[in-house]
Amino acid sequence: MPGYSMDKDDYARRLRRIEGQVRGLQRMVDEDTYCIDVLTQISAVSSALNSVALGLLDQHVRHCVADAARDGDPAEVDRIVAEATAAVARLVRS
Amino acid sequence: MPGYSMDKDDYARRLRRIEGQVRGLQRMVDEDTYCIDVLTQISAVSSALNSVALGLLDQHVRHCVADAARDGDPAEVDRIVAEATAAVARLVRS
Amino acid sequence: MPGYSMDKDDYARRLRRIEGQVRGLQRMVDEDTYCIDVLTQISAVSSALNSVALGLLDQHVRHCVADAARDGDPAEVDRIVAEATAAVARLVRS
Amino acid sequence: MPGYSMDKDDYARRLRRIEGQVRGLQRMVDEDTYCIDVLTQISAVSSALNSVALGLLDQHVRHCVADAARDGDPAEVDRIVAEATAAVARLVRS
Repeated sequence: MPGYSMDKDDYARRLRRIEGQVRGLQRMVDEDTYCIDVLTQISAVSSALNSVALGLLDQHVRHCVADAARDGDPAEVDRIVAEATAAVARLVRS
Repeated sequence: MPGYSMDKDDYARRLRRIEGQVRGLQRMVDEDTYCIDVLTQISAVSSALNSVALGLLDQHVRHCVADAARDGDPAEVDRIVAEATAAVARLVRS
Repeated sequence: MPGYSMDKDDYARRLRRIEGQVRGLQRMVDEDTYCIDVLTQISAVSSALNSVALGLLDQHVRHCVADAARDGDPAEVDRIVAEATAAVARLVRS
Repeated sequence: MPGYSMDKDDYARRLRRIEGQVRGLQRMVDEDTYCIDVLTQISAVSSALNSVALGLLDQHVRHCVADAARDGDPAEVDRIVAEATAAVARLVRS
């Protein structure tokens, strides 16, 4: 089970909200809303996505890395940490 | 009319695709997908959102700023540029 | 002359401060400072760099784009705006 | 000792290089270099800073989190992971 499984309902709720915000962007474009207002809403959606990502990352390190360390499996720790760092790099650069 | 109105259909299509990607994230979480794979998909959605934002920003400067400059309205140029810079700041920090 | 030339002293002062902050990072690493405190200082340097970039971008659009528009040179406006948007894309993704 | 201590020389070298790049920015501004070229150099410095940060973060998780987990100290794991996630949040938003 992934580290986030206890909070699945919360992530599902937040992602449904983000989905609604993206539909809101579609309406804004359809209604010729001023560009800056659309850009402001895009930043809000990006921030919401980032906070979902940070939550998943936190739980990944908290569970997967810690479990591998407790199991005394340094190779697995290395693999999981390398994956997490690469995921952070993508987040920082997306 | 906003600077992007000529490309409304393209923006609508891209935003519908992003909406579908967010629904994809919901399925991934619901199916207990490995955290790193969910994070990778979130970065993809963020990148897609950013490229929509960059397109809107480009057209905002290309039309709104240039029109105000051609109209010889420095106060309006200042206002629009300040808005665009603030929008970029939010993008960089979201 | 570039759009920022009136504010050269201010940019020079801010960049010297950032240079000092980077030397501060070197000292922190040399003195085995706790990783999280070094990361906090790196974020502060990144934010300072970003605000210099946003200032330069604002003045680029305010002067170069507006001047080309006033000069009735749509091809030059297109070129300068495309350059500015590409610069924003690099900022967002750096 | 922090997780990065084995690589201190490498981090020192990279930070000295970044310091040199920031001095290069000062020269560009002093010589009235075209705004877009200065912005391009700022993005290069930001990327270099981010890769130093990602290295420190990787080693923080690899050592501090894994050590606390091996020591069977869940409270310490929680504290260190929360700190790391907050550091990532600052990186993503700087």
